[in-house]
Amino acid sequence: MTKPSIPSGTRDFGPEEAARRIYIFRTLEKVFRLYGFKPLETPALENLETLTGKYGDEGEQLIFKVLNSGEFNKKIDPAVWQEGHPKVLGRLIADRALRYDLTVPFARHVVMNRHAINFPFRRYQIQPVWRADRPQKGRYREFYQCDVDIIGTNALEAEAELLLIYKRAFKALGIEHYQIRINHRKLLQGVAACIGAPDQFSALTVAIDKLDKIGREGVEKELRERVGFTDDQIIKLNHIFDAGSDISKLKLILQNEDAAQGLADLELLLGPTKDMNVIVDVTLARGLTYYTGAIFEVIMTDPAGTFKGSISGGGRYDNLTGIFGMPGISGVGVSFGADRIFDVMNELQLFPDNIYRWSKVLICCMDDKALPNGRALAELIRDSGERCEIYPSADKLKKQLGYANDNRISFAVIIGTQETESGLYTLKNLETGEQWMMKPEEIVDKVTHS
Amino acid sequence: MTKPSIPSGTRDFGPEEAARRIYIFRTLEKVFRLYGFKPLETPALENLETLTGKYGDEGEQLIFKVLNSGEFNKKIDPAVWQEGHPKVLGRLIADRALRYDLTVPFARHVVMNRHAINFPFRRYQIQPVWRADRPQKGRYREFYQCDVDIIGTNALEAEAELLLIYKRAFKALGIEHYQIRINHRKLLQGVAACIGAPDQFSALTVAIDKLDKIGREGVEKELRERVGFTDDQIIKLNHIFDAGSDISKLKLILQNEDAAQGLADLELLLGPTKDMNVIVDVTLARGLTYYTGAIFEVIMTDPAGTFKGSISGGGRYDNLTGIFGMPGISGVGVSFGADRIFDVMNELQLFPDNIYRWSKVLICCMDDKALPNGRALAELIRDSGERCEIYPSADKLKKQLGYANDNRISFAVIIGTQETESGLYTLKNLETGEQWMMKPEEIVDKVTHS
Repeated sequence: MTKPSIPSGTRDFGPEEAARRIYIFRTLEKVFRLYGFKPLETPALENLETLTGKYGDEGEQLIFKVLNSGEFNKKIDPAVWQEGHPKVLGRLIADRALRYDLTVPFARHVVMNRHAINFPFRRYQIQPVWRADRPQKGRYREFYQCDVDIIGTNALEAEAELLLIYKRAFKALGIEHYQIRINHRKLLQGVAACIGAPDQFSALTVAIDKLDKIGREGVEKELRERVGFTDDQIIKLNHIFDAGSDISKLKLILQNEDAAQGLADLELLLGPTKDMNVIVDVTLARGLTYYTGAIFEVIMTDPAGTFKGSISGGGRYDNLTGIFGMPGISGVGVSFGADRIFDVMNELQLFPDNIYRWSKVLICCMDDKALPNGRALAELIRDSGERCEIYPSADKLKKQLGYANDNRISFAVIIGTQETESGLYTLKNLETGEQWMMKPEEIVDKVTHS
Repeated sequence: MTKPSIPSGTRDFGPEEAARRIYIFRTLEKVFRLYGFKPLETPALENLETLTGKYGDEGEQLIFKVLNSGEFNKKIDPAVWQEGHPKVLGRLIADRALRYDLTVPFARHVVMNRHAINFPFRRYQIQPVWRADRPQKGRYREFYQCDVDIIGTNALEAEAELLLIYKRAFKALGIEHYQIRINHRKLLQGVAACIGAPDQFSALTVAIDKLDKIGREGVEKELRERVGFTDDQIIKLNHIFDAGSDISKLKLILQNEDAAQGLADLELLLGPTKDMNVIVDVTLARGLTYYTGAIFEVIMTDPAGTFKGSISGGGRYDNLTGIFGMPGISGVGVSFGADRIFDVMNELQLFPDNIYRWSKVLICCMDDKALPNGRALAELIRDSGERCEIYPSADKLKKQLGYANDNRISFAVIIGTQETESGLYTLKNLETGEQWMMKPEEIVDKVTHS
């Protein structure tokens, strides 16, 4: 028998880690609910055809397909098996796949339930997604997304609300140093128009989206060599980059209608977020697969943290449900990367201590006769709402108290022969060392009020 | 484009359903935590080899395998592809599979983390599992299990604790009419010994486990025809069945050491559960794949419910971690079937109304100029801890109030031109129809205190 292991890119979360994750999920959920968002759960398994064609070629390769049951091999002729492309073969033997994100399942759900939903519809969804990506620091094959979306309205107020959610959520989590970068598809279109490359919009955005990674030189090289940009176009683009986040400068350079519209929206969003670190970033594109308006990204800027990447992102999409035959529904949403936030909060030690309080009281029975009394007392303590556990066997006191110590338990109740006879049990405060002889009701009262 | 759908045996849970499920999970979690149980999360994806050989042939066929990425077809020669058994082929192109239950991943986790764990270790785990079973009423392909296990102790106190958890959990959920059936592997061994069939133990338990479904005649037939039981053995077995749950009678009939040991344990468990509906059921076997001591099952007995099947089950296992090379760890656990409990609670209407309270206040802006004030007031209300949403666009009041009504929102704040000028907003109690003109701080005070 080989030593057991888990798949690369996945993780177990033991009690302390699970408690930290629950803390993140519940904190975000509480914030989402404060803004009226409603929960949605979709299955991990989706029909493969629901997911295909939604994530671009690169994304599509990362979808985990689930093998059909039964005699799946009979579906494919041996010759086809040998020569076929894995993508095509996969579709023949896998009808289902694992959820790749929460947005496409959400769109599918909305289309399937369009008549039951009141618009504008605010939904949150906190569930794992799976991607067959190469695992590395901060990148997992199974990770949680925490999504909030408002659909059925094209009002910019929805974008403003999401920015306020960022503020409240990160404050609640104790994350102080972050920056929100916002951009707009119209602004990107304005850039393309300004440099005389409206037809190369897609290639242009793909290139400038890489600015963080490959620098201006890299972007220049790519645009010259792959897209065929001229010197003049590169100079113009550099002017735009030089303007940076300065809206007045951008307005001066980008004098076309698309840019004006995008900048107007972004200016409106800067109003309600004056006290936050929000900047316009004309290079932000985030793949742009379905964004049609504002685009958001949140990056860590904590000087004490090693992770400076993105912990959340999103944007407006005008036609997400259109891919499932329901056009005309505009929405905007952002996704919190819970696993990155988990890593960041671990590194910055942002978790409060009280999330590891498993039990307040440990009942220690010194012989088997004490167990029924110990059990009854434990139940009384639980009735009062306090967490209490009983050490299940009459082991040596030292061992039982060692267990209490390892589990950060505050009180021990010790029941031996004498205690069973007298009905008075020893209550010990494990933090101060104080101890008392008390009746069960007195113990309940003491531990509930300290 | 075809109409979107979800895989057979899976479900979406819209807001109201998701709220009900969250209610079940949180209620169970709260009870588990009262008893000192700690959370554990394991990945949905396990290495296929972790799961194989753990669930019997029938179970193994139900494991969802996840297709490898890359050129998986190159791993199998076309001739092998054509002639091979799907089970063997599956292993060649699928290294990973979806979690089939929470017990085996738990055992794997314990073995991998044995040096970091304090025993006795109480863990709870609330996660979905997947089985390629034929979907039918109450049976899904993706469903949640809520497991509590205590491992690293063989004390019967652990079993007693799980029975108390049943009591507290079902009470908290409002489930009144249920019966807990308990049995013991030793008692089943005692039955086999008593009827002179110690070597047919397995076949005997498989047969009597079906008593509920096929009746005494069916069990008799199976034992005669497949196992080769004699008339005398059948008569003895019927005697045992006749004794039913009567421990005194069972003691008289089953005079051997195994039976005595099993019955002694079961009697000890009946003590602390005198006020509960707990019966000894000598026919309960639950597959018996790894149970070595007590066996539990909870069935619904509500006269108003159509579902009379099992909503939870479990038992003691002495060697679960042994399959991963770590012998000698005894544990006992039960699993709550959240999806069955969800169906039962839906039918019996056991969910409290307050779980659907999305927002308490809706801010209605009559023109775009009102939005900044509305947004600021909404933030103040949220600061006070109340859920509040803003209708994101200045639609007609009737439409906005209709939305409030559909979403069971108690208060509306209406901000029009006049209100923006005067700084006094209209607050309307949507349940009573009362309305007031108030300053923002007064509104916060009013809605937080009603």
